[in-house]
Amino acid sequence: MALVVIGGVAAGLSAATRARRLDPHLEIIVLEKGPAVSYGACGLPYLVEGRVREAGQLVVYTPEYFRKERRIDVRTGARVVAISHPRREVALESGGRVHYERLVVATGARCDTAGIAGADQSHVFTLHTLEDAERIRSFLRERRPRHAVVIGGGYIGVEAADALRRHGLRVTVLERSAHALLRDDARLTAAVQKQLEDHGVELRCGVPVRAIEPGRVAGVDCDLVVLAAGFRPNVELAAEAGVEIGRTGAIRIDDRMETSVRGIYAAGDCAEVTHLVTGRPTYIPLGTTANKCGRVAGANAAGGRERFPGVVGTSIVGIFGMAFATTGFSVEQARAERFSPVAARIEAPARPRYFGGTKTTVELVADRATRRLVGGSVIGEEGAAGRINVIAAALHSRLCVDEFEQLDLAYSPPFSPVWDPLLIAAQQLMKEL
Amino acid sequence: MALVVIGGVAAGLSAATRARRLDPHLEIIVLEKGPAVSYGACGLPYLVEGRVREAGQLVVYTPEYFRKERRIDVRTGARVVAISHPRREVALESGGRVHYERLVVATGARCDTAGIAGADQSHVFTLHTLEDAERIRSFLRERRPRHAVVIGGGYIGVEAADALRRHGLRVTVLERSAHALLRDDARLTAAVQKQLEDHGVELRCGVPVRAIEPGRVAGVDCDLVVLAAGFRPNVELAAEAGVEIGRTGAIRIDDRMETSVRGIYAAGDCAEVTHLVTGRPTYIPLGTTANKCGRVAGANAAGGRERFPGVVGTSIVGIFGMAFATTGFSVEQARAERFSPVAARIEAPARPRYFGGTKTTVELVADRATRRLVGGSVIGEEGAAGRINVIAAALHSRLCVDEFEQLDLAYSPPFSPVWDPLLIAAQQLMKEL
Repeated sequence: MALVVIGGVAAGLSAATRARRLDPHLEIIVLEKGPAVSYGACGLPYLVEGRVREAGQLVVYTPEYFRKERRIDVRTGARVVAISHPRREVALESGGRVHYERLVVATGARCDTAGIAGADQSHVFTLHTLEDAERIRSFLRERRPRHAVVIGGGYIGVEAADALRRHGLRVTVLERSAHALLRDDARLTAAVQKQLEDHGVELRCGVPVRAIEPGRVAGVDCDLVVLAAGFRPNVELAAEAGVEIGRTGAIRIDDRMETSVRGIYAAGDCAEVTHLVTGRPTYIPLGTTANKCGRVAGANAAGGRERFPGVVGTSIVGIFGMAFATTGFSVEQARAERFSPVAARIEAPARPRYFGGTKTTVELVADRATRRLVGGSVIGEEGAAGRINVIAAALHSRLCVDEFEQLDLAYSPPFSPVWDPLLIAAQQLMKEL
Repeated sequence: MALVVIGGVAAGLSAATRARRLDPHLEIIVLEKGPAVSYGACGLPYLVEGRVREAGQLVVYTPEYFRKERRIDVRTGARVVAISHPRREVALESGGRVHYERLVVATGARCDTAGIAGADQSHVFTLHTLEDAERIRSFLRERRPRHAVVIGGGYIGVEAADALRRHGLRVTVLERSAHALLRDDARLTAAVQKQLEDHGVELRCGVPVRAIEPGRVAGVDCDLVVLAAGFRPNVELAAEAGVEIGRTGAIRIDDRMETSVRGIYAAGDCAEVTHLVTGRPTYIPLGTTANKCGRVAGANAAGGRERFPGVVGTSIVGIFGMAFATTGFSVEQARAERFSPVAARIEAPARPRYFGGTKTTVELVADRATRRLVGGSVIGEEGAAGRINVIAAALHSRLCVDEFEQLDLAYSPPFSPVWDPLLIAAQQLMKEL
């Protein structure tokens, strides 16, 4: 019995590792098209910035480690060009073929530059792999660019802008949609915009980019361009093998991470997941989800019976020392999902004022009919991750705001105020409902 | 209609404030025996330490504020000596009487020194009020003591030890029971002991103190003693008025915070609450609970209909920069509560290693039969408050470890690792079950 995994970053290696743990005798082969596996892709902006000093720090394990310690055959530079499920084999670009009984597709996503003319110029970069980050670093060192344009105001875009600004460049972020961080949330976007502007970065929303001219983009002069838009799941291999693609454009899977084709599993940035607030499929490509889904895909591909219930859409991004954390839906998104959202937004100190606590902003969104929480956001310099995680746990448990208001949260002056901002927001939301 | 509140710190003022909000016309009188109201009692150790520079910083509102802004008649130095419920009046030590229709008892707790001989000496202090903290500060300044003994290894005891050590004193903490932080948890106690010892403070458990000799306590030389043990709810007034006292020794209340006597409510450090993990009454006197219960007591006393479901026993304390956070039950406590506990304890970085994350320790405790989480602890220099609050939210929602393991927690390198320590602990616990 052989398990083949296509893709050797988050989901792929989680699948392989989990499969090995459940079945010590399984033959496991991981085929990674790039030169490195098992790296922390979310650390790439910090490699550009320099806070992560060298690429090696982001590499968690090497192919040698997997081979020796886990008996997993990890092959780099192994690009799969076709899946033939009737014959249970994949074809490599190099000409070889690899047989499988079970297949995990963890092909990830890409930055789709097809719609942008001039994306192939030498001063234009994506920030998706270790090599991308290394290339930007070299360019910064050798060419000393002064004006950067970042195309895309999602997580990677704003993190790249932060990193480039810290190198002293003038930075402009151009975002196609009306909102930053991929979240239809006017107040969040305004807060992101203000934080960027306070640190010398301009964010322009509603600016689609169709071409990169040699020295300018959408009227902005620049000598460095980072493309952080057009994130697309890599579904072509799977689709050509007959695997069903969902409405979101990513691979459709069940709660065991199996695709519509028996024996083929999918996980990570190429696949959908269930949104636990709506119960419907969604596409939210994030490293945490990739790892969790990969584990479940690997377990089931190895003959186990595990479930991945879904996500609530939690994320966090740091912009010049301020955390912007979100989970579930904004008011605008909740309305689009056919809830009748009611929101409360408060500002309160993250710790007691006498202890020097800084201001934190909490927004909670509930559904008027059921009083159930459907989303929230936390913005602040301290404690934002912990607080958004409490809201995320509440979404998992389908808590009403009435229950949330009574949560027994930890209090001691060095850590939090006696009324946690989460509870103040809940009290405010109770008044609005 | 008049509402009288006995006690003007956390629960009492929350009750008065909430009652005012629900009924603009109610006459509200708060009777506080001490000279100050509305202060952050949990900040007292930091006032001793000096990080909080003056007592005024801990005072949130003054009696004048309540009188002018909220039309609440707050009287300080007003010690109630008797409640006559048939006549609906309370008697003051000064001789006056105050009539009420509804009464909220928020008489708090005290440090009971009755069993300790020599507690009345001039170098022996409690740390319960603003004046206590001021007195210790003066003593430190004027008498320059060198060796302190702290009696009691609960929260206030270890915080006082931390504060005194930072003043340069040699400090020994004597704890009657076998464990620190009021939690029967051998591993937590060992961790507290190590942290204290690493910073020059000795913790001796299993040392009951019955007498304070002039220059030594239980064989330890000292010229300053802080009594932080024998915390007892002030129930005498209520008991004499016929109010039922629960098995824990605190005032028994229902989920509307009403006592066994119709029209008398109780909240805060003098009252029981329901432990949501067991469904049984417990006595866990904390500021957060006092505020929440006070709100509900005030609302119902003003004619509202609000409920306080209960607590899960969450708390956190900082010892020389390390947070020790707990919620629900330890293994030992869970066993005593008739669960069949299974625990997993892991160490993992609080943020990615390449981002300089420090080590955090997470313990999760589940019930073997139901797989439900019943407790946990988090020890670490960063993110402990947020993480314990996620466990607390899970206890509120009665999550199984299987559900907890799948929580969609926020990830970005400046804030957390891709596998949060909480999830690593849950995975470990899954293996143990």
